[in-house]
Amino acid sequence: MVNLTPTSSFSVTIRIQIPNHAGMLANVTQAIAAAGGNLGQIDLIEQTRNFLIRELTVDAVSSNHAEEIVQAVKAVPEAQVLNVFDRTFNLHRGGKIHVESKIPLKNQMDLAMAYTPGVGRICTEIAQNPEQVYNLTIKGNMIAIVTDGSAVLGLGNLGPEAALPVMEGKAMLFKEFAGLDAFPICLATQDTDQIVEVVKQIAPVFGGVNLEDIAAPRCFEIEERLSQELDIPVFHDDQHGTAIVSLAALINALKLVNKSLEMVKIVINGAGAAGVAIARLLRKAGATQICLCDSKGILSLSRSDLNPQKQEFAVTAAGTLADALQGADVFLGVSVPGVLTPEMVQTMARDPIVFAMANPIPEIQPELVRGIVAVMATGRSDYPNQINNVLAFPGLFRGALDCRAKALTMTMYLEAAQAIASLVKPSDLHPEQIIPSVFDPRVATTVAAAVQRAARQEGLAGR
Amino acid sequence: MVNLTPTSSFSVTIRIQIPNHAGMLANVTQAIAAAGGNLGQIDLIEQTRNFLIRELTVDAVSSNHAEEIVQAVKAVPEAQVLNVFDRTFNLHRGGKIHVESKIPLKNQMDLAMAYTPGVGRICTEIAQNPEQVYNLTIKGNMIAIVTDGSAVLGLGNLGPEAALPVMEGKAMLFKEFAGLDAFPICLATQDTDQIVEVVKQIAPVFGGVNLEDIAAPRCFEIEERLSQELDIPVFHDDQHGTAIVSLAALINALKLVNKSLEMVKIVINGAGAAGVAIARLLRKAGATQICLCDSKGILSLSRSDLNPQKQEFAVTAAGTLADALQGADVFLGVSVPGVLTPEMVQTMARDPIVFAMANPIPEIQPELVRGIVAVMATGRSDYPNQINNVLAFPGLFRGALDCRAKALTMTMYLEAAQAIASLVKPSDLHPEQIIPSVFDPRVATTVAAAVQRAARQEGLAGR
Repeated sequence: MVNLTPTSSFSVTIRIQIPNHAGMLANVTQAIAAAGGNLGQIDLIEQTRNFLIRELTVDAVSSNHAEEIVQAVKAVPEAQVLNVFDRTFNLHRGGKIHVESKIPLKNQMDLAMAYTPGVGRICTEIAQNPEQVYNLTIKGNMIAIVTDGSAVLGLGNLGPEAALPVMEGKAMLFKEFAGLDAFPICLATQDTDQIVEVVKQIAPVFGGVNLEDIAAPRCFEIEERLSQELDIPVFHDDQHGTAIVSLAALINALKLVNKSLEMVKIVINGAGAAGVAIARLLRKAGATQICLCDSKGILSLSRSDLNPQKQEFAVTAAGTLADALQGADVFLGVSVPGVLTPEMVQTMARDPIVFAMANPIPEIQPELVRGIVAVMATGRSDYPNQINNVLAFPGLFRGALDCRAKALTMTMYLEAAQAIASLVKPSDLHPEQIIPSVFDPRVATTVAAAVQRAARQEGLAGR
Repeated sequence: MVNLTPTSSFSVTIRIQIPNHAGMLANVTQAIAAAGGNLGQIDLIEQTRNFLIRELTVDAVSSNHAEEIVQAVKAVPEAQVLNVFDRTFNLHRGGKIHVESKIPLKNQMDLAMAYTPGVGRICTEIAQNPEQVYNLTIKGNMIAIVTDGSAVLGLGNLGPEAALPVMEGKAMLFKEFAGLDAFPICLATQDTDQIVEVVKQIAPVFGGVNLEDIAAPRCFEIEERLSQELDIPVFHDDQHGTAIVSLAALINALKLVNKSLEMVKIVINGAGAAGVAIARLLRKAGATQICLCDSKGILSLSRSDLNPQKQEFAVTAAGTLADALQGADVFLGVSVPGVLTPEMVQTMARDPIVFAMANPIPEIQPELVRGIVAVMATGRSDYPNQINNVLAFPGLFRGALDCRAKALTMTMYLEAAQAIASLVKPSDLHPEQIIPSVFDPRVATTVAAAVQRAARQEGLAGR
């Protein structure tokens, strides 16, 4: 195993009891360090004359590694492990979101206004003036996060139940970063027609639809049909969210190596939802040399196994990913762990840019190409330059809902990417800082403003 | 117009400026009283040597009446109306519920655990152990409130958007009274097959389904099919919620008049979802003389226009509601405003019991039969003896979810009704107190316990 960085996604909290004498804690922390664990928070739980109870939080690189660390602590003489908590599992227990009232219901007066009989007047008002649903209900601030569980993160077709923790997390992001309410809709069908039908039928409650983790190529048709048939914005985040943030990061990375988007040779590995959307947005932004690869290599005109979206980018060249990369300036990976090797990177043009965005494990571990690449980015929150969709989708929907945009367009995506890129000042630009932090509070408002501007220019703003 | 009781569902807040001298406020309050307004909260907003600004909250009986009250205030010499707020509309603005994170997302560590890469471990766990969806997601505490907008309150087929304020209110009730999360699903279809299909397809996220405001007779088929095809509890509140609480109230009302359920003659007016469900539950509870009426009168064997649910209760007698009521002990109305007259009540047996539950305006205004009936109840929160489903559904779902009941049964409904009735102590029982207050904190837990007990006895508890 390569020397991975421990992360809080594999962290455990170990509760230990140790004798109350000097050096005991040092023995424990040494054992953790020797096992490769990354020690975080240390809490004192109880202290008597004879013993101490402490809780140590330790980051590991994997579940197995966490178990090794616990074993190492157990092996410390006189230390007694009382309990071990998996912090990630604990955090997910009972789910991560809840539905709350905005107003209390403490007496008959509250009930008479919020519910019957008072609510009847609100219903009548909406029945008579349908646009009022935006003012008098949750619709104007509510997003449906829709999945069929067919492409959950990089983990594959896990089904709707197993996709739910991701969708809940997504709802948290909508709230945290844009104040939007969002609710997970995990569908017990993977049939295109049925998905389109269900989403249309549940649409009255929602001001926008965020499609998530739906496998290609059906995701393309689903998004296209829903966009046409619904009068609220529909957005497939795996496509356009990834594309917007990739473009934003690439705009800034290219500044660092003094190359222009029009001139660089770009290889995209992965020709699913994200790969195709990135290629389309890069082309819209001015890129001219784009080579897409899938698991069988370059999307070549000579191949007979390409779906319509792949055919859109087929080229005369043929060969493997390694062939495609020779002399390339940019690698954008939206594929699977480990497909990119340091040897392949070494055949790229001077100052190679590598965005290894496979989730949760990138196409190449950044540790393996340190010093070889000019700019490195991943999809992970625990490395620098995180290409994280959360930079795009909250502000995008915020802007779209605020101006009641009836649809989203490539121009909006382009404007959003440029808005994100613009937030890294020239003086701050650095190979480990090509993209703003997801916690930069300017991001969502800047993206929202860019989207509203574009919506008004295109005549798509509803107010 | 009869002399109705002003209610907070028609309340306005009037902001006035008056000269700062004695007697001014008295002039204003006198004007409000003369106009029939019911004065509530009075706030002092600003005070100078010359003038005062106050906000007065006034309950009215209708929107027109509220407007008359405002005009009366405007007519007071030297009083100036600065602003008028409709409190009910204000309360509904922007919707009444929101989706919140249970945990903060303040740094990369939070993200790495709640979202990628950490969430991937949770997804994998659920994919491998499907039952874990109940422990690691929102499912175990989440109810879908499903409507097609075809029978919104007593207002009719207003469609899914206009139904949303009711569903939001329902979600508030689930939270307030049972700590359950609930989310509105308002469907853009009124086709039985499509409704069944959609609900099945969105079911993975939900631990239970509450059907609401779906017109009869399709509500019967929808509930029946969903109950059979889903492994989570499905409940049509307009049927069983109303039936449970009606039975609970009737059990106690009969104690007051010393009659037994087995012996009384019961007339139910309204043979839609609620009427049929009440009849079924009363029969299950031991009632033997039940006469259902619809808008055409008694459900008679001689009629050829009865759907299967109505046929279930067809009798040899025929005639109008007035005919049915002669000598009846109990009137249960789940129909439309104003169909019951004082004259009809006077033909009933001694000590008549009248539950006029049409919403928002009852079959007969309680003011009209004061002194004539032994026990009077309505569906409204602003009269005594509110037959309010909120006494049943929160505890019912709380119990069902806590023991992971796969289905709900008539036995559970019966137990729930008896549990609710039992909460009014014999010493507290009174014609104006036959049912516990919806704010009685024992209600939901008592109902939940009764449902769990029944679920275990019937072998339907999943844990």
